[in-house]
Amino acid sequence: MIVALDAMGGDHGPSVNVEAAMLTIKNFKHIDVLLVGREEILARELSTHGYSGDRISILNATETVEMDESPSLALRRKKDSSLRRSVEMVRDGLADAAVSAGNSGAMMAFGLFLLRAAEGVERPALAAAMPSEKTPFLFLDMGANVDCSPDNLFQFACMGSAYATHVMNIEKPRVALLSIGEEANKGNELTKDAYKLLEASRMNFIGNIESKAIFRGDADVVVCDGFAGNVFLKTTEGLADILLKMIKQEIMSSTMAKIGYLFMRSAMKRVAKRVDYDEYGGATLLGLNGACIITHGRASAKAIMSGIREASDYAEKKVYERISMEIKSYYEPKQQ
Amino acid sequence: MIVALDAMGGDHGPSVNVEAAMLTIKNFKHIDVLLVGREEILARELSTHGYSGDRISILNATETVEMDESPSLALRRKKDSSLRRSVEMVRDGLADAAVSAGNSGAMMAFGLFLLRAAEGVERPALAAAMPSEKTPFLFLDMGANVDCSPDNLFQFACMGSAYATHVMNIEKPRVALLSIGEEANKGNELTKDAYKLLEASRMNFIGNIESKAIFRGDADVVVCDGFAGNVFLKTTEGLADILLKMIKQEIMSSTMAKIGYLFMRSAMKRVAKRVDYDEYGGATLLGLNGACIITHGRASAKAIMSGIREASDYAEKKVYERISMEIKSYYEPKQQ
Repeated sequence: MIVALDAMGGDHGPSVNVEAAMLTIKNFKHIDVLLVGREEILARELSTHGYSGDRISILNATETVEMDESPSLALRRKKDSSLRRSVEMVRDGLADAAVSAGNSGAMMAFGLFLLRAAEGVERPALAAAMPSEKTPFLFLDMGANVDCSPDNLFQFACMGSAYATHVMNIEKPRVALLSIGEEANKGNELTKDAYKLLEASRMNFIGNIESKAIFRGDADVVVCDGFAGNVFLKTTEGLADILLKMIKQEIMSSTMAKIGYLFMRSAMKRVAKRVDYDEYGGATLLGLNGACIITHGRASAKAIMSGIREASDYAEKKVYERISMEIKSYYEPKQQ
Repeated sequence: MIVALDAMGGDHGPSVNVEAAMLTIKNFKHIDVLLVGREEILARELSTHGYSGDRISILNATETVEMDESPSLALRRKKDSSLRRSVEMVRDGLADAAVSAGNSGAMMAFGLFLLRAAEGVERPALAAAMPSEKTPFLFLDMGANVDCSPDNLFQFACMGSAYATHVMNIEKPRVALLSIGEEANKGNELTKDAYKLLEASRMNFIGNIESKAIFRGDADVVVCDGFAGNVFLKTTEGLADILLKMIKQEIMSSTMAKIGYLFMRSAMKRVAKRVDYDEYGGATLLGLNGACIITHGRASAKAIMSGIREASDYAEKKVYERISMEIKSYYEPKQQ
């Protein structure tokens, strides 16, 4: 498998991306990496690792899409950007998948323009596996579609169910709708209408789930519109940050606590590891005709490597083709 | 001040409510409590505290609204419920405010039916002060209005600003709109349209805020629709629970960590106290013609006492009258 990596993307730029490529070829014998970006910079970075093999190659691209750049402007103006060239490699069959730690909106725009939505898919969504108390669950949409119809949510559920089956190897994924109460009549107009569609389908729909229950691991796929999804994700990020900060403040304010922390440090580190996004790769642009994965802008080399492995998996199993098939089948009414 | 307390409300029922009444008269000389509910039960509870003074009295009400009861059904059927009778006391001028740890939707329904919305208010909202790294902020809507118009959000901002000024004593409250990006063009149709209304008004509107930034304390009032608001709140609840559970699991799995915890215990307790909802009273039904406060269903006696103090404050300052005045004034265009 060949994965095209937008080597200019992310908050840390080329050095972390090149390191991720090095980690990838070391850990996965079946994945080669195509670094896309400014050739002279990438060649220099590669040489600092002393690498001269043929499993990492470079494709020159002179422009970079900024993190806060408008996706539609990037689409019109950044024709030679590392992000666009990476997706083009997938379109032209020169790479099996594309990965970026850059601008997720721009990657969605390039993906839609260059690869098109998979057959039957109205709107691709951004999905990621997240940790729970039990097994990980797939969460979508993370923010690609801020205004959704009930039918959009229904399709997200179909795509998520297909992904959970084929990538996460869950036989009959339990699909839930994010809402503000468990009963069918709880939620807003959007979720109440989506509930009816899901209930009438052949999907393994288990009903509404509240955001406080998500982490219990009661569902394998959690579906919502991109606005609510992004609020959910950023709340978890913000709260985890402030809790850690408070714990640090309180520890530093007391000698007893500082001593205690010395003993507890490794337990605390294990907690941090369990909730660490680095262990969970990236977000998939689900429903495109091809494999595109976006990682967090702050992603470490290890996280980007996880994203590359995920992208390779997704491409190898041709999940986007299966999504089209499953969407069709889910539109058939439930057998009574 | 006299506060009517729905003594049957909440997960813990009469005993916690009666204890809250006892705490109130002990800590606040200016607040008397009217316990509303089954007379024989409440009299018995009161006698276990050995109380025989005249600052706590009882009003008999034979029915109870269940936590998961439909608000519209409760409105039609539960005419002699402790919740309804509490709100009636406010309507009839026999109490200054009503407090319940019960069904928030039902309290909103009774409030709207018995007290009516304050002049100029289209839809009352549920608002609560929450902790941040710096000073507390007011958050609304917490879930009373799941489908909102831009105008609704604008009114929530007016009401929140008035509350922050008069109850939280913040001179020029910084009002922010919860969205999924800081720029004016980030968000869904609803927030983008509300942004324009807020920007054009005389309010101290500071723009969009992302949910991960809320806890930094950069805004005094954070406004959103009740669906997003409820997702936000329940995410914080769920994540805090799971982090604490994980920390406990990791501590119990190692002797070193157990020893460390002994030294750190008081620091961890201080963290728990800083994020404890008990310290922050209840949620206000903002925009009703009267003072109604709802606390968490799991509220302790101390939390209910905080809610009673807050309700008394709110009534004393006649905040609902000020809200009407301010809503009118905010509809005037900004002076250039």
